Amino acid sequence: MSQVTWKKVLNGTVTSAKGFSASGMHIGIKRKNMKHDISLIYSATPCNAAGVFTKNSAKAWCVLHAQKNIKNAKHHAVLASSGNANCLNGPKGKTAIEQALKVLAKQLNISEGNILSAQTGIIGVEFPTQTVLKGLPTLVQKLGSSRKHGADAAKGILTTDLRTKESAVSFQLGQKKVTVGGISKGSGMIHPNMATMLGFITTDCAISKKMLTQALRYVNHLTFNKIAVDNDMSTNDMVFVLANGEAGNKEITKEDADYKKFVAALQEVARVLAYEIVLDGEGATHVCTLHVEGAKNDAEAEKAARQIANSMLFKTMLAGADPNWGRIAAAVGSSGAKFNSEEFSLFFESVKIVDHGKVFPQNREKARQVLLKREYQIRVIIGKGKGKMTFITSDLTAKYVAINTKYS
Amino acid sequence: MSQVTWKKVLNGTVTSAKGFSASGMHIGIKRKNMKHDISLIYSATPCNAAGVFTKNSAKAWCVLHAQKNIKNAKHHAVLASSGNANCLNGPKGKTAIEQALKVLAKQLNISEGNILSAQTGIIGVEFPTQTVLKGLPTLVQKLGSSRKHGADAAKGILTTDLRTKESAVSFQLGQKKVTVGGISKGSGMIHPNMATMLGFITTDCAISKKMLTQALRYVNHLTFNKIAVDNDMSTNDMVFVLANGEAGNKEITKEDADYKKFVAALQEVARVLAYEIVLDGEGATHVCTLHVEGAKNDAEAEKAARQIANSMLFKTMLAGADPNWGRIAAAVGSSGAKFNSEEFSLFFESVKIVDHGKVFPQNREKARQVLLKREYQIRVIIGKGKGKMTFITSDLTAKYVAINTKYS
Repeated sequence: MSQVTWKKVLNGTVTSAKGFSASGMHIGIKRKNMKHDISLIYSATPCNAAGVFTKNSAKAWCVLHAQKNIKNAKHHAVLASSGNANCLNGPKGKTAIEQALKVLAKQLNISEGNILSAQTGIIGVEFPTQTVLKGLPTLVQKLGSSRKHGADAAKGILTTDLRTKESAVSFQLGQKKVTVGGISKGSGMIHPNMATMLGFITTDCAISKKMLTQALRYVNHLTFNKIAVDNDMSTNDMVFVLANGEAGNKEITKEDADYKKFVAALQEVARVLAYEIVLDGEGATHVCTLHVEGAKNDAEAEKAARQIANSMLFKTMLAGADPNWGRIAAAVGSSGAKFNSEEFSLFFESVKIVDHGKVFPQNREKARQVLLKREYQIRVIIGKGKGKMTFITSDLTAKYVAINTKYS
Repeated sequence: MSQVTWKKVLNGTVTSAKGFSASGMHIGIKRKNMKHDISLIYSATPCNAAGVFTKNSAKAWCVLHAQKNIKNAKHHAVLASSGNANCLNGPKGKTAIEQALKVLAKQLNISEGNILSAQTGIIGVEFPTQTVLKGLPTLVQKLGSSRKHGADAAKGILTTDLRTKESAVSFQLGQKKVTVGGISKGSGMIHPNMATMLGFITTDCAISKKMLTQALRYVNHLTFNKIAVDNDMSTNDMVFVLANGEAGNKEITKEDADYKKFVAALQEVARVLAYEIVLDGEGATHVCTLHVEGAKNDAEAEKAARQIANSMLFKTMLAGADPNWGRIAAAVGSSGAKFNSEEFSLFFESVKIVDHGKVFPQNREKARQVLLKREYQIRVIIGKGKGKMTFITSDLTAKYVAINTKYS
């Protein structure tokens, strides 16, 4: 899949694929301001849908609900809100979702089982169900398929994010043009294993539910699960993909060439949505693409990369653009991954810091210049093996602390 | 061991136990200022010694050296320096220790195998061996057994610590008074599994090497391994205990009543030294004693406590004195420990936040008042089991970030 088979859609979003409409607005969950706090994504044509969910054992009501609902054969819509996680707030939280989906299903003339639901925000606070029920008809009226409608939906799921995250690509399957587009939100509690994040991807590709699920799991492992803003894992994380088949291609039902093209496109959309989450991470001023290589296998490389990417000392090093690289070695050592100090090599972009255990202190200033950039790559070689893994991580700044000391 | 069998020694330190002398001074490793950067602890009477070591697989030279040396039957001294970790700086680092111990052994008229060595500071920088060799005779001349001498040794091992950490207790074994005293250093890279910390404890108790080792391992698990300033684990962490038997008690050789008294005393000294490390954690303004209870077993409780104690969102919550307790639940959920939301209860000191899943938002202001204190307890009940574990953790402040963005 190294050959690029997709094309970026300019200003692409969750409404880029055929047959999808969306809306977003302020419904009244966020009380401190009039910011958007609810979003709807809809396809009149029934969709095959797939989802991945937080591994946190304290799951929000919406996660428990969606894990059940995703098993239904067909879906038409995603309802997502921000400002209240609807988590650990007692059994009323469960009723809140059921009531909202009932009202929405009636408005859209579909069944409640056809709707997926997601929420994000503060934990342990009662959900303002009546406020939401009252606003739902307006949300449905606002549905539309323009770029602006996608952007409104992208806004409705934000919490401390500073900007919307949208992306889309298209590719050819024979004579048919297929589009994949999506939106996501971060931006704290971003930890591997689904982070605090929501991602909603739509496609007009015709693909079986089984293959769509397989594609999402594969792509999620390499994108949304490989980012680190802080070391916390949320109770609410979910990614959904809805495929309505309106592109008219021959339905993908096995791992053939068409499937590979679809996976490549899905991976690119997810990659951009995940990268944007880190770029907009709370207080982030630098984004590092971290490659760990030479591990015994990919799982060992992942262990090392995860430990580095989440190390507070590594992240403050990035914030200060201070090439105190010993922290990287210490993090690898503490990860449990096999560390061979005679093979240990380290590069900041093309600048050699350590080569097979030999240190190059004369490159310190060049290294600092790399770290002063907003985005850069760091390559860590920890042994002679073939295992490798890439993580995206942001720096830890005083602003991150400021944001999170005054959240609730 | 719930009955307190020891008494605090006023102004106790590493020279409180009979027969131990110490010194500390500026030898020239720290170049930016004239701060103390080397320490010596010495007993003319040969000691039984025990040590625990970092589990980081990238180990500093001093750790590799001490892990070997600790196996020798008897020890007389500990040489410790700060400012340079002597880690990942090539094979010269190994020679540096060998040369220093050779010079020191000659000065003290003992063998190199009788000396334990420890270093702390920046990783990957050449060790100033010649400077240290030149200064060693002065360090030996300065040896003395007063409280001031202990304090000098406590200073010589500090890095970003703001103050020295010293503690001692005494207890009776029959007619004999036994004393245990020690010093430690933090204060960044403080993570469970030995953190970046050094601890040196001396005692005049007569105890076999085997029982001393057993006692240190037990105590270390409950004290130094249960603190969290950040989520990094150092390459250099070590704790040593030296016992010279000068108290004249009947040598402890098995798990009898005398052993239990000794363990209680050792645990108290280690507890204070560990607590002081968190209290002086980089940028720390609050210290939380975190109790996790109701877990399936102690190991599950430890998992949950470790995850909470190291959560950046929990630590920023402490910094802001903002009772956004959902972060605690999210951390427990992501720890892998079994989480029962119907049993979940949470107390800040005596203030009830959640009781068996029921939230008490009316106690929010009281909760905030607790978090405004410098030191407090938080109790988290995650189920109906008997497993429990206590961690000590500090808050994550803008100052932590400021310190660590400009270290090297």
